[in-house]
Amino acid sequence: MAAQCWTLWDEQQGTHRERLRLGETHLGEALEGCEILHRRLEGGLSDGVDVVRIQCGQLVVELLPTRGMGIGRAWIGGEPIGWQSPVPGPVHPKFMCLADPSGLGWLDGFDEWLVRCGLESNGAPEFDRQGRLKYPLHGLIANRPAQRVQVQADSETGEISVIGVVEETRFLFRKLRMTSTVTLKAGELALRVRDEVQNRSAVATEMQMLYHINFGPPLLGPGARFVAPVRRVVPRDPRAVEGLTTWSRYADAEAGFAEQVYFLELLGDTRENTLALLRNADQDRGVSLRIDRRQLPWFTLWKNTASHADGYVTGLEPGTNFPNPRSFEGSHGRVVALEPDATATFDLRMEFHRDADSVQQVEQAISDIRGTQSPEVCDQPQADWCVV
Amino acid sequence: MAAQCWTLWDEQQGTHRERLRLGETHLGEALEGCEILHRRLEGGLSDGVDVVRIQCGQLVVELLPTRGMGIGRAWIGGEPIGWQSPVPGPVHPKFMCLADPSGLGWLDGFDEWLVRCGLESNGAPEFDRQGRLKYPLHGLIANRPAQRVQVQADSETGEISVIGVVEETRFLFRKLRMTSTVTLKAGELALRVRDEVQNRSAVATEMQMLYHINFGPPLLGPGARFVAPVRRVVPRDPRAVEGLTTWSRYADAEAGFAEQVYFLELLGDTRENTLALLRNADQDRGVSLRIDRRQLPWFTLWKNTASHADGYVTGLEPGTNFPNPRSFEGSHGRVVALEPDATATFDLRMEFHRDADSVQQVEQAISDIRGTQSPEVCDQPQADWCVV
Amino acid sequence: MAAQCWTLWDEQQGTHRERLRLGETHLGEALEGCEILHRRLEGGLSDGVDVVRIQCGQLVVELLPTRGMGIGRAWIGGEPIGWQSPVPGPVHPKFMCLADPSGLGWLDGFDEWLVRCGLESNGAPEFDRQGRLKYPLHGLIANRPAQRVQVQADSETGEISVIGVVEETRFLFRKLRMTSTVTLKAGELALRVRDEVQNRSAVATEMQMLYHINFGPPLLGPGARFVAPVRRVVPRDPRAVEGLTTWSRYADAEAGFAEQVYFLELLGDTRENTLALLRNADQDRGVSLRIDRRQLPWFTLWKNTASHADGYVTGLEPGTNFPNPRSFEGSHGRVVALEPDATATFDLRMEFHRDADSVQQVEQAISDIRGTQSPEVCDQPQADWCVV
Repeated sequence: MAAQCWTLWDEQQGTHRERLRLGETHLGEALEGCEILHRRLEGGLSDGVDVVRIQCGQLVVELLPTRGMGIGRAWIGGEPIGWQSPVPGPVHPKFMCLADPSGLGWLDGFDEWLVRCGLESNGAPEFDRQGRLKYPLHGLIANRPAQRVQVQADSETGEISVIGVVEETRFLFRKLRMTSTVTLKAGELALRVRDEVQNRSAVATEMQMLYHINFGPPLLGPGARFVAPVRRVVPRDPRAVEGLTTWSRYADAEAGFAEQVYFLELLGDTRENTLALLRNADQDRGVSLRIDRRQLPWFTLWKNTASHADGYVTGLEPGTNFPNPRSFEGSHGRVVALEPDATATFDLRMEFHRDADSVQQVEQAISDIRGTQSPEVCDQPQADWCVV
Repeated sequence: MAAQCWTLWDEQQGTHRERLRLGETHLGEALEGCEILHRRLEGGLSDGVDVVRIQCGQLVVELLPTRGMGIGRAWIGGEPIGWQSPVPGPVHPKFMCLADPSGLGWLDGFDEWLVRCGLESNGAPEFDRQGRLKYPLHGLIANRPAQRVQVQADSETGEISVIGVVEETRFLFRKLRMTSTVTLKAGELALRVRDEVQNRSAVATEMQMLYHINFGPPLLGPGARFVAPVRRVVPRDPRAVEGLTTWSRYADAEAGFAEQVYFLELLGDTRENTLALLRNADQDRGVSLRIDRRQLPWFTLWKNTASHADGYVTGLEPGTNFPNPRSFEGSHGRVVALEPDATATFDLRMEFHRDADSVQQVEQAISDIRGTQSPEVCDQPQADWCVV
Repeated sequence: MAAQCWTLWDEQQGTHRERLRLGETHLGEALEGCEILHRRLEGGLSDGVDVVRIQCGQLVVELLPTRGMGIGRAWIGGEPIGWQSPVPGPVHPKFMCLADPSGLGWLDGFDEWLVRCGLESNGAPEFDRQGRLKYPLHGLIANRPAQRVQVQADSETGEISVIGVVEETRFLFRKLRMTSTVTLKAGELALRVRDEVQNRSAVATEMQMLYHINFGPPLLGPGARFVAPVRRVVPRDPRAVEGLTTWSRYADAEAGFAEQVYFLELLGDTRENTLALLRNADQDRGVSLRIDRRQLPWFTLWKNTASHADGYVTGLEPGTNFPNPRSFEGSHGRVVALEPDATATFDLRMEFHRDADSVQQVEQAISDIRGTQSPEVCDQPQADWCVV
């Protein structure tokens, strides 16, 4: 018994399990104490949402196949990672309307820890000259249900993976298929995401991807800090200029705080890998992202330290681009070209740091990538990065 | 055994009962002959709609948690209260699109006896300068599913209540929670509604509420009449001016009849309570609304005596405002301000009159409130009440 | 035992069968080898879609009550009729947004073999002067779930029918009810559709209907041909002019091929019946449509011989009009007027030809209708038929 596979559902084959629980006896010895639970929520705005909960040692994550394979919530040793959104989610796409003329319908369902923005577009809403919506905020992929979901467990490597296939298709227009794999490993406080986006058309196309990864208390708090090997930081707009001197530090919750957004380019190591860290004030808790700059060359830092009731949260957002309107990003070449049948792959590794040593180690690794280079901090929005 | 409570579902706790039937043995002696039945409809436009049916003596009401705790249908002794909409409802919100660019999507699901309009806005559609929808007709709340639903029965007081919690939330925007309680009491032909709307944000906000309570045959018919202690009545538009001399009387069904709408201010008693009555031609059937003018200071009378096929119906609509576009009402102060965490409460009592005496009594009570004051009947739309 | 009837669901009566299988023992001897299977799909974009599969001899069809009684897929002896859409359907309407401001939301769910366009409108999107959507592409009916579905089997005539009732209703606006009957008969490789559209309002109205019947491989291929008794053919636009000399022949798949659309008037026989045929290159496979010109006077041929990945497909589309914007068709009288309570009936018969003889016979029948008249081939779009 090594790798095993369970199909939760496959829309083509007509199989669907309303509920599945896999424990130690199914998973094997190396996965002792692990558990995989699939269930479908009923009632309210979550009615019909499939949730796949994986417990792997201390780490528990809840995947949302119904919401584009996003990750709703996660915990380490019972302590929540992620944030507390005022949105009572997970919200089923049937209650959403991304085509809301304002382009802001996406905000009705925004409560995930990790939500993908894309695939045709991933940024701010864009309208045509008559004010008609062309690209809604953050794109469609987070509100498309997975067509197929599988769980894999390997009792030798101690890895558990959930694989989901999500389609973003409109006849005569886009034909994008995302195959997403989220992997946990016994003994690690970490999580790997690999997303493969295929152009299923015989005509070349373009795509965008942005990982909107959101953190609130207890990790986020006054004195918490964003740390990364920054080559350049640009305030998105006048509001971000206001907070520029403290752009990498977090303040306490403030009712009515208007979001501040910073666009970043990070330095990479010789293999173009890079790291970004969010750590708490005491420097003994943190989460780091390992990013491949060839896949995700741009980084957005979203600071929304509003009241807890309204969502005290920061977003770490590696992407193929900045979340500006689609045409602006396209005109600056920040899109991924996909030839017919071609696939773009995106890898992310998230690691959770639970003591001062671990935080210190990742800070050192960031320092090593940075070397002697100081970041260029632009004091104004830049025309090639920002819609001014 | 006094008050008992059953949770039909609670989205947070993950509980949901597809079907529940509570009869005499559960409810106790004081509720003899009463029954509570919860079921989920399947197929067609109603697929997935939860219905809570309460029988309390002669009175039967069907609550629709899936449609914002509206009341779909009701009967007294088998005779329908409410109206016959051409809409084949109850329509599940998943088949609705309130964001329809016309702003009229709400009409696709309009068939309730009592439907709430609100909470961010409750009136006619409003668009920005480019014609982009800002506020859809009658707002969102009637198409939001309840997150939690409980049934309470008190065998001592003989009261049965259904309590539902409905959220109207958009991240960065509104964060309103309505807790709705509908109560029936054994031995009474009456129904109480109490809605508490809480601003869950740390930032002050505004809200609107309007109860769109709709009646058709057999109560409504030629010669039926609306009776209330009216201080002032204003025709909404030229079409309403046409019917002004008979504004409080009803005509027979007329194919193609275009709706006539009258805006009213009612007089209150010393406690600012007031009454409004709809009674039939024979004056031996009626329904009265008891309204607290401090909560619901304005009243709209909607006359739509079109053919029976198209919906022969009148709406009695107490509200925090008139159902004009949101900005117009805001500019005239007809909104409810809600400080952070503050709650606005709305109470309504509906009583059913089944004989001439009972009708006569409520007419007398209305007359007592009115006293010697004659209504001011404006012969044209007024600039502070109407969009002219 | 002659005619029998099973109700799959009836929203009014509250009955719904999640799954029903009727075999030989239920259907009787004349229907030996026939089977009716109802099931509800789960997971992905098809979650909640009801499918009624009918096997009648060699012919298998899958009806989609949830998608307006469309026909999703069909096979003869295991060989697919229809086409391979890139859309991973059947898509449940809850994942659709026809009110998408672009008017193109319909394309998100387009994968049926036979899909009805209508009923208030059936053509290209139309907008008001401010660019606000008035009529979305191809109308609403294909994304409205049937309110009631019945299956009938007659062991004497050997006929199996599925009857579904679909409503297209908006309060104060349209009140159209379509009762659709699809019939198969043992021993015939054919299928009959009868749709009755009733105006349920007391006010006169107008409607449109277009049958979008789509074919791909193996029937469609290089050298395949459209054959009909054509009175007049008009290219819709400059793109169609480009392909005018080969308008009735099909080329091989071509990546990026832009659709070409031809508007046709067909000749009828003395009873105003007519025939249209699609046949393969070898002239030994074909499908013919029998159309009543009094019901469906206009015909659209849609050629979309793009790559197989993007949908290599042609649409044969008899209709009450051409699929131009609603107002344009209305101004040219190509709508069906419906008095109060009046019903318009549409009949279609589709026959499958499986050898050269059968193809030859239908070609001869077409030739007989055509007689000596040659088609008028317009070399440019015509102002009364095309939006130029």
